[in-house]
Amino acid sequence: MYKVIYDTDPGVDDAMALLFLHLHPDIDLIGVTTVFGNASIETTTRNALFLKREWGIAAPVAKGAGETIDPSRPHAGWPTFIHGEDGLGNIGVPETIDLPVDRRPAYRFIIDTVRAHPGEVTLIAVGRMTNLALALRESPEIAGLVREVIVMGGAFDVPGNVTPAAEANIHGDPEAADIVFTAPWKVTIVGLDVTTKTVMTGGFLAEMAVAGGKDVQLLADLSQFYIDFYKQRVGDGMVIHDSCACVYLVAPELFETRSGSVRVVCGGLADGQTIQKPDGRHFGPSAWDDLPSQMVCTVIQPEKVLQVIRTALVESVRA
Amino acid sequence: MYKVIYDTDPGVDDAMALLFLHLHPDIDLIGVTTVFGNASIETTTRNALFLKREWGIAAPVAKGAGETIDPSRPHAGWPTFIHGEDGLGNIGVPETIDLPVDRRPAYRFIIDTVRAHPGEVTLIAVGRMTNLALALRESPEIAGLVREVIVMGGAFDVPGNVTPAAEANIHGDPEAADIVFTAPWKVTIVGLDVTTKTVMTGGFLAEMAVAGGKDVQLLADLSQFYIDFYKQRVGDGMVIHDSCACVYLVAPELFETRSGSVRVVCGGLADGQTIQKPDGRHFGPSAWDDLPSQMVCTVIQPEKVLQVIRTALVESVRA
Repeated sequence: MYKVIYDTDPGVDDAMALLFLHLHPDIDLIGVTTVFGNASIETTTRNALFLKREWGIAAPVAKGAGETIDPSRPHAGWPTFIHGEDGLGNIGVPETIDLPVDRRPAYRFIIDTVRAHPGEVTLIAVGRMTNLALALRESPEIAGLVREVIVMGGAFDVPGNVTPAAEANIHGDPEAADIVFTAPWKVTIVGLDVTTKTVMTGGFLAEMAVAGGKDVQLLADLSQFYIDFYKQRVGDGMVIHDSCACVYLVAPELFETRSGSVRVVCGGLADGQTIQKPDGRHFGPSAWDDLPSQMVCTVIQPEKVLQVIRTALVESVRA
Repeated sequence: MYKVIYDTDPGVDDAMALLFLHLHPDIDLIGVTTVFGNASIETTTRNALFLKREWGIAAPVAKGAGETIDPSRPHAGWPTFIHGEDGLGNIGVPETIDLPVDRRPAYRFIIDTVRAHPGEVTLIAVGRMTNLALALRESPEIAGLVREVIVMGGAFDVPGNVTPAAEANIHGDPEAADIVFTAPWKVTIVGLDVTTKTVMTGGFLAEMAVAGGKDVQLLADLSQFYIDFYKQRVGDGMVIHDSCACVYLVAPELFETRSGSVRVVCGGLADGQTIQKPDGRHFGPSAWDDLPSQMVCTVIQPEKVLQVIRTALVESVRA
């Protein structure tokens, strides 16, 4: 069993990934930490509690950061045109959910949980890297205690999505991402290079909803707004960014990776851009030297990834 | 006939491209402008005069910039490990060449020549963009008078070569390159995405030297040091960066291109990085908006490019 803390800003594709983590038989979801990004921290935390209630998720929810690690960064507004006013596709999530959040802030929850299970916890982070960076800043030694960090974020050999240079999660807190990628732990980065190739059609999702029952039906309902957004971009279907990172945990053989240190541009034209120095390539002295080598996903098998998701969402319900 | 001004910092691969421009039957080389980069401006200008004398090139040589357009940029030293102490593979170029340079600085030579042949001149720039940027700053209207600008430089979907982010020509004067790429003229950028795929083996070059006579033999001699440098990187052979840009002029069908505005990162981690906003992709407001769309080469047919070079260097001698 993979012990997972899921750091998330639900968010529509976050919701699919959460249901996958909840239902996959080899995954033990031991915590959900929220972060701002797709919506405010109040909204993403409320949404995590809503999904916890609707889907009967046992893992505690800990509320995380509501602003960038460098508080002087200007704030750009929420992407309501992608995730809806409520962050879950305008399905009418209740204003408040009557479930408690963990008493600790997310970064403290991460530190305590990692320490309690040394070498066992995988952090899957699919929002801004703020909580992870805060945890590292508070307790750098956790880097040696985490099993693996899997990040949805970045764009390496392809353009970004917020700007031509940068992907949204990293652009939302570049300083935090640079801390996370340069820390001495194992990070695998699942970025736009592979996620944008992984499109789930409306029909595929609808069929899963029929086969998977009411939990998947809720997922399909809250995804419609997001599918409509992607209609202009990828045709009929949704790019399932966050689920790709979760599938990597259980089926890394569906990905090809490239190793090398990774830095994040902070400020200027390329603010939030992720750049890897591939191992084995020679350059002059640079800011990438003497840093841990991390893995960047460069190739994905999208159809097989979709099947891994379908199996978890549909067959676990039947079992 | 294509009227060409060749802006260059010879430089070994610069020399091959110069011989190509000199010998190709459809190209009228009407000027050579020098720039610092592979060596100091004194050395690259001396080398241009040396090659002009050895190869009997009629075009005048105008001496160009010896420092970045922003003079406060620190200077990093010359890449003598690639091009040799003399910039031409340590073949023992004489200290001075008894030929005159044009009385004008390169940027002024460019302005005057472009004005003299409105709509006819192609600028092929294979070093730092300093001369072209100075020409634009002095006489912005030349942008409307140039037929096309073809640049060897940049790295778009691949890592750089000086740093993981940046290619040498652009890294050597990022502010100048940003001026050139954002000006209202047609720029085609032949960068590492395609040039690094175009490797000429030592055997190919040696065979050309036998078939092509003493001019090509000089080229082969001065290329040996450069070939030795590339041996650790690409095996037996040299990456013929600058010649790719020249082949583009006469055989654009051997390349695939992507259109979109291009900016150059100035300062910070990604200093000198080239980033394109592909046309047809949607982003939030960014520094790429409302700028001319330029062409970036993304695919090349290396074997055919090598044959175009061979034909020019060998068959024109026989003819």
